[in-house]
Amino acid sequence: MSAQERSADRLARAWLSACVEPGLPAVGALLDRVGPGEAVRAIAAGRAVPGVHGAHDDSPHATARAVLAQAEQAGLRLVCPGEHAWPAGLGGLADAGVLHGRGGPPYGLWVRGDHDLTDLVGQAVAVVGARSSTAYGDDVAGDIAAGLCDAGVSVVSGAAYGIDAAAHRGALAVGGTTIAVLACGADVVYPRGHDGLLARVGQQGLVMSEAPPGAHPTKVRFLARNRLIAALTQAVVVVEASWRSGSLNTLKWAGQLGRVGLGVPGPVTSGSSTGVHLAIRERRADLVTNAAEVREAIAEIGSERIKGSPTWGLGAVRDTDGLEPLQLDVLESLPAADDDALTSDEVAGRCGRDPIAVRRALVSLAQGGLVGCADGRWRVRRRRAPLPGEAGARTLL
Amino acid sequence: MSAQERSADRLARAWLSACVEPGLPAVGALLDRVGPGEAVRAIAAGRAVPGVHGAHDDSPHATARAVLAQAEQAGLRLVCPGEHAWPAGLGGLADAGVLHGRGGPPYGLWVRGDHDLTDLVGQAVAVVGARSSTAYGDDVAGDIAAGLCDAGVSVVSGAAYGIDAAAHRGALAVGGTTIAVLACGADVVYPRGHDGLLARVGQQGLVMSEAPPGAHPTKVRFLARNRLIAALTQAVVVVEASWRSGSLNTLKWAGQLGRVGLGVPGPVTSGSSTGVHLAIRERRADLVTNAAEVREAIAEIGSERIKGSPTWGLGAVRDTDGLEPLQLDVLESLPAADDDALTSDEVAGRCGRDPIAVRRALVSLAQGGLVGCADGRWRVRRRRAPLPGEAGARTLL
Repeated sequence: MSAQERSADRLARAWLSACVEPGLPAVGALLDRVGPGEAVRAIAAGRAVPGVHGAHDDSPHATARAVLAQAEQAGLRLVCPGEHAWPAGLGGLADAGVLHGRGGPPYGLWVRGDHDLTDLVGQAVAVVGARSSTAYGDDVAGDIAAGLCDAGVSVVSGAAYGIDAAAHRGALAVGGTTIAVLACGADVVYPRGHDGLLARVGQQGLVMSEAPPGAHPTKVRFLARNRLIAALTQAVVVVEASWRSGSLNTLKWAGQLGRVGLGVPGPVTSGSSTGVHLAIRERRADLVTNAAEVREAIAEIGSERIKGSPTWGLGAVRDTDGLEPLQLDVLESLPAADDDALTSDEVAGRCGRDPIAVRRALVSLAQGGLVGCADGRWRVRRRRAPLPGEAGARTLL
Repeated sequence: MSAQERSADRLARAWLSACVEPGLPAVGALLDRVGPGEAVRAIAAGRAVPGVHGAHDDSPHATARAVLAQAEQAGLRLVCPGEHAWPAGLGGLADAGVLHGRGGPPYGLWVRGDHDLTDLVGQAVAVVGARSSTAYGDDVAGDIAAGLCDAGVSVVSGAAYGIDAAAHRGALAVGGTTIAVLACGADVVYPRGHDGLLARVGQQGLVMSEAPPGAHPTKVRFLARNRLIAALTQAVVVVEASWRSGSLNTLKWAGQLGRVGLGVPGPVTSGSSTGVHLAIRERRADLVTNAAEVREAIAEIGSERIKGSPTWGLGAVRDTDGLEPLQLDVLESLPAADDDALTSDEVAGRCGRDPIAVRRALVSLAQGGLVGCADGRWRVRRRRAPLPGEAGARTLL
C-alpha cells in the first residue's frame, strides 16, 4: 500500500468510527468486501446498510479531517488494521461471531498514551468484574493485577467502578502497564469519578477506544467494547460478578475468541460471586486464586508461540514446523468444516490429552492463525479473507 | 447359602474385622479366592498374609463369638456382603484400587441405629471437610446438609470436628437422616467432645464402622474409613479443605470409585479453602454453591437408574434395554480393556456430549454394574469375580 493509499485508508476509517456505530456486522462485511474507501463512499451516499442510520454525508473527506484534528487536540492517535501498532489479536474477531448485534474487528482504534499498543498486548490479561464489588473482590483484583504486572504482563480492563478500577490501581501501584478500553471516546472521562485514575493510566499505560473523540458511552457500546478487551488479551479473569454482570459478556467473548476464561471464586454466600461460580460450573471459566495461576494458564501460549509464518491459499504450504507435539496432536484432531467444529473438551477427548493443556494449545494455535474458534467451537482455519489491497479484495459492491 | 453357612460366614467376618486391620488388599484377595471361612482358617493358623501381623488364634470361633457378644452389648449389629442390608455401592471398592495401602470392600460393617442401611444410602451424599473450619464453612456445610435432607437425601460424614460435625448437625436440625462412618469402633466416642452428637446421630440415623467394637482410631484407619464414605454415596462434597486435609483423600476415593466429586469454594484469601480450589482447578471436583446444585449433580443418577438386571459371563446377554440414549452413547464409546480405559472427559470427547452429563451417565452406568471405574478411568465392566458360594469361588489357597 502506498503512503497515499494508507492516508486515504486512515481517513475512511476515521469517518467510519465517527459516523457509524462500532461493531456493526454489516459494516464489517462491507469493509471486508470493498475496503474502507468504497465502504465510506457507499454509506455516505446513503446506501442502505443494516444498522447504519443518518450517516449521509456530502463531504466525508472533510468530516474525517475534522475528526482527526479533534483527536489530535485531545492527544489521541488513530491506529488502523495493517499498521505496525495494530494488535494481531483483534484479527480473531473476524471469526468470533456476533453478540448483542455487535462483532468483528473495530474499524479503527483511538489511542492515548506513549506506549506502543502492540508492545503492551504481547502478554496481556484482562481483569474485569462487578461495579458493585466487595472489599474482598477489590483486594483480590488488585493483588492479581499487581502480580501480573510484576511478571511483565499488561493488565487490560474497562475503567469502571469496582473491580475494573481495582485492577488498574493494582497495576499502577507496582509501576506496571495497564490499558483502559473505554466505551466512550478515549478523551472522555467516564465515570466522572475516575478523572485521576484515567489520567494515571494514560501516563503509565494506554487509554483507548473504538469510539471517536468526544463520544459518550451507551449500553450497546459497553457490550461492543467488551469484545475488544477479550480480543486484546490472552485470558480474561473475572473477579466478582453477579448473575447479570457485564463482565460475563466479556467472558463470553473470550470463549467466542478462544481466549482463556478464568474466574476467581468467593464465598458462596456473596451475591457478588454468583456469576463467577456459575461460569466455573459451566466450564466457561477455570478457577484461579492468584496471579501465578493466571500466568500458568497463559504460560504455554507465550512459550509455545508459533515460529514461522503460516501462509494460506491455493497451493500454499501449511507451516507446522515450529509446533510442539501437543499442538500437532491437537491440530490433527480438528475438523476443517464449521459444522463439525469441536469444543476444546471434545478435542481433548479425541487426542486423549489433558483438557486444560489442550485449550492452551488451541489458543496458541489460534494466535498463530492455524485454527479458528467461533462460538466456543474449534476447527482448522479456513483460508482467510483477503485484506484490502490484496488480490480479490476490492470487488465492487 | 444355607442358614448355617450364613452364620459361619458372619462369624468368620466378625473375626476378620476384630483381628485384622481393615482394608488390607491381601486379605481382600484371599476373601475373593477362598471365602471368609477358609481365609480365617489360613490367617488364624499363622499363614503369612501381607499386612497381617499377630493374628494367630487357636480358637477363632470363640474369638468371633466373643466379638459378636461385645457388639450386641454395645448395641451394634454386623452387616455382611450378600445380606439385604449390605449396600450395593460398596461393591465398587473391589475395582477401585488401593490408596495408602488400603482398599477393597470392608470385611463386614458394624452398625448402630434403627434404620436400614440400604434404605439410607439409596440417595446419599457425603459432606466432609476440614477439622479446622471457619464459621463460613460450618454455615455452608450445615445449609447444604439440611437442604439435601429436605430433599430426602441422606448425609454421610465422618463425625470429626469442624465441617463433618456441621454437616451432621445440619441434617439433624431438619430431622433428616445422617450416617457417621467412624474410624474407631461404632461404639467408641471419638472425638470425645462429640458424645452428644454421636448419640443423636445414632438415634436419628446410623453410626457405623468396619472396625470392631471398642477399636480406637489410628491414622491409617482414618484413611481406610474414607473409602467407605465415598463408596456409600453418590457424591462427595468437600466444604473447606486445606492443602493437606484428609477430606481430599475422600475426594480421591470418589474419583477412584467413579463417584461425583464436588467442592464448595470460598474466599481465595482463606487457607481453609485452598485444597478445595485446587481440586476444582484440577477437575477432581466440580464447583457447587448450594444443596440444589449438589442434587442436580446426582439427579440423573437417581432418575436414570438402570432398570433390568444385567447378567454377565459366557453367553450372557447384556441388558441395555432400560438405558437412556446418552447412556447408550457413553457405553458405546467405552473400551473394554483396562489399558485403554478413558477419563470421563475423554469419553465426552468421543461421543461429543457435555462432559458433566457424560460423567453423570458414567456414574449411573457404574451403579448398574455396566461400567467400571479404576483410578478415575472408565471402561466396560469385566465379568465380575464370583461371590463366595458361587461356582468357582472356593478353590483352595
